[in-house]
Amino acid sequence: MLTAARIKHYQEQVAQCLDQKGIILTPEERMNIEIADFGLGEFEVQGLGIITYINTSVYCAKELVLLSGQTCPQHRHPSIDGKSGKMETFRCRSGIVYLYLEGNASSRIQALVPASSKSSYTVFQEFVLRPGEQYTIPPDTFHWFQAGPEGAVISEFSSTSQDEYDVFVDPGIVRIPQIAEE
Amino acid sequence: MLTAARIKHYQEQVAQCLDQKGIILTPEERMNIEIADFGLGEFEVQGLGIITYINTSVYCAKELVLLSGQTCPQHRHPSIDGKSGKMETFRCRSGIVYLYLEGNASSRIQALVPASSKSSYTVFQEFVLRPGEQYTIPPDTFHWFQAGPEGAVISEFSSTSQDEYDVFVDPGIVRIPQIAEE
Repeated sequence: MLTAARIKHYQEQVAQCLDQKGIILTPEERMNIEIADFGLGEFEVQGLGIITYINTSVYCAKELVLLSGQTCPQHRHPSIDGKSGKMETFRCRSGIVYLYLEGNASSRIQALVPASSKSSYTVFQEFVLRPGEQYTIPPDTFHWFQAGPEGAVISEFSSTSQDEYDVFVDPGIVRIPQIAEE
Repeated sequence: MLTAARIKHYQEQVAQCLDQKGIILTPEERMNIEIADFGLGEFEVQGLGIITYINTSVYCAKELVLLSGQTCPQHRHPSIDGKSGKMETFRCRSGIVYLYLEGNASSRIQALVPASSKSSYTVFQEFVLRPGEQYTIPPDTFHWFQAGPEGAVISEFSSTSQDEYDVFVDPGIVRIPQIAEE
């Protein structure tokens, strides 16, 4: 579980990535960067930084920040109360993003599946996004993604986000962060 | 009416603004930047450049680019077939944006109302957005906005965009661009 001090450390790292790319946050946004480690305790391997700009009952916009080689674990956004799950458009702003979806597995993938959770990665249709490139992920579709060596910044445009309903493959995942006592 | 050559010229200017801010477009997006002059024939005064990244039946995301002092004329997004009009979040990425909405008029505003269309600007509740700041405009609410001297880049996150239904105050406005023969 992350401590408050580790969260602060990673928030600064994420903010620096954005600074380097000229993406400006307010002081309040910088203090509230979400450090998602999914309860796996290895943020630098499986995790990402999230800034939610707006999340209404219709649309949502976030900045997703991945450190070098960092992976967001495989998950899908299911229907909730009969309403279609979240559809999301990933637009790569910097770095390279290796994105994997359900469908025909690519014969060889460029990402490295995190060794600690190999069995929780099961979809391998590869899309490579370079800066300016984007891909729209349909609702309720398993996907995971990893940054190249430089890390990556992704603008996410989507329908409403309800992270607490996300379905992960890895049974060890806790989506909503818990903070340890120091 | 804009000629194809003027459109190309302005597309290059808009693309340069984005280049300077490190916002990357694909070659295809660069060629398709929308140069909206609203049929008023004075793009540098009343107009803006628009890149639509995605527009689904639920959400939409655009980059709006304003040259120095350029103004987007007053308009609102009405309900269509009983569906609520477009709600939109403007996030200032660079420059300063002077945004005006219905409501209590500010005693003194910082923007200069375009001289050629003074009577078509009737709402003066001022919001000033600096980089990293954002404001969400409710559906069906009159608004207009102007860039400061450096120009401005705005990320717009919104519900579905149906520009052809926008309601402008200025009766001379034609929202969907027409291109003149050379």
